[in-house]
Amino acid sequence: MISLYKVGGNVVEDPAALDLFCRQFAALEGPRVLVHGGGVRASQVQKALGQEPVKIEGRRVTDAQTLEVVTMVYAGWCNKSIVARLQGLGCNAIGLAGCDGGAITARRRPPKTLSDGVTVVDFGFVGDVTAASVNREFVSRLLDAGMVPVFSAINHDGAGQLLNTNADTMASALSVALGAKLFYCFEKNGVLCDRNDDDSVIPVLDPAGYARLKAEGRVAEGMIPKLDNAFQALRDGAAGVVIRNADLQAPGGTELKL
Amino acid sequence: MISLYKVGGNVVEDPAALDLFCRQFAALEGPRVLVHGGGVRASQVQKALGQEPVKIEGRRVTDAQTLEVVTMVYAGWCNKSIVARLQGLGCNAIGLAGCDGGAITARRRPPKTLSDGVTVVDFGFVGDVTAASVNREFVSRLLDAGMVPVFSAINHDGAGQLLNTNADTMASALSVALGAKLFYCFEKNGVLCDRNDDDSVIPVLDPAGYARLKAEGRVAEGMIPKLDNAFQALRDGAAGVVIRNADLQAPGGTELKL
Repeated sequence: MISLYKVGGNVVEDPAALDLFCRQFAALEGPRVLVHGGGVRASQVQKALGQEPVKIEGRRVTDAQTLEVVTMVYAGWCNKSIVARLQGLGCNAIGLAGCDGGAITARRRPPKTLSDGVTVVDFGFVGDVTAASVNREFVSRLLDAGMVPVFSAINHDGAGQLLNTNADTMASALSVALGAKLFYCFEKNGVLCDRNDDDSVIPVLDPAGYARLKAEGRVAEGMIPKLDNAFQALRDGAAGVVIRNADLQAPGGTELKL
Repeated sequence: MISLYKVGGNVVEDPAALDLFCRQFAALEGPRVLVHGGGVRASQVQKALGQEPVKIEGRRVTDAQTLEVVTMVYAGWCNKSIVARLQGLGCNAIGLAGCDGGAITARRRPPKTLSDGVTVVDFGFVGDVTAASVNREFVSRLLDAGMVPVFSAINHDGAGQLLNTNADTMASALSVALGAKLFYCFEKNGVLCDRNDDDSVIPVLDPAGYARLKAEGRVAEGMIPKLDNAFQALRDGAAGVVIRNADLQAPGGTELKL
């Protein structure tokens, strides 16, 4: 069984958290893939360069300047820092963007109507991916050779254009394509029943339970697209989905069920 | 026979020159490797971030901030832009830094006495490489699978630390390790007999001829480390070395001979 771990920017940019995660991830056994974010650092670099990060409904609007920054930060600094660290821990990591080896080909997102049903937004150089976007043969060949692919969420359209992709969506597409078990790792121990109580982790969540949590306004805003995405991955064929702490020795974790 | 092409920052950062090079490189046949620079853009990004690029004897002093910038620019933006472009042209490129798959392990440069024999400089996070630094088996496996490795000159020490490497040296180490023919590509048609006359290309240059050119002060300053490096690659086992225009249809080129 292939395991697919996703770690977000909050972990990638906290040296202690990243160090701990890398040590624990390197010590795991079996075939595994890592997908990482880096959005916090990307926004810092944008600001340091005099650019103003623009996000709409949580997604970064990616003009040409922004594309250069996210490619530098995600595929450059974050990706190579993680890979060098894993290599130093004896884990044969190989850092990839979707263009490398033709691993993932994204579709540029057409202008999109927002949830208000009225506003139409062009997100720019943003690419959407599905399981069909993944070159399964290439990724499998790396896994068969004992390597650990480490993906940044930078993809391409197959015609020379780089595209910025949401890392959660990319993790879910990869897990479906590979039939992998997906672990969304972040700074909490799982999905919380009470967002102010870190110990209120829900051990198992199904769509009905999720609908109830949402109706009662108990799911943190940022968790909604993550959970929608996670349930979709499960429906589409991921071998399982767990939302858990990036400290792999932390207790708990929420297992999604259909 | 494996061909190893090196293109410098002047090509990488000139959209028209890069586009032309990629088209011509993608159309080549046979196993090949690309090593690219990106120093011009790295200096621009450093300045935009309020850092002052420091170079000593042509080599960039790489403190922690500089390391982040060069990793972003070389391994991120330059590398992925080139790979996406080559993929769009039907060339199955895979972008790599030395850490990826443990491809190249550099040795951090100890503080070094400069050519004045007196000044000692710590270049910081700079790594030197030789043919022995190259994981030949890994690179060969990619070539055997029909892939085209595209290397940025970011390496690691094998213990988790990224290191900035001179791209010419990296190209020469790779060509010796792979027994490849090395093509140093830049904006001139070859080594010039008269640096003010672009048509004065020397077709074949041996060490005695090179010594004469140097003694007569006819070699441009920046060419000296390149040529020293190139002759060393030939002595160490590269299958050949040619200094030529990055426009692969340009006439000329200087072939080095021992």
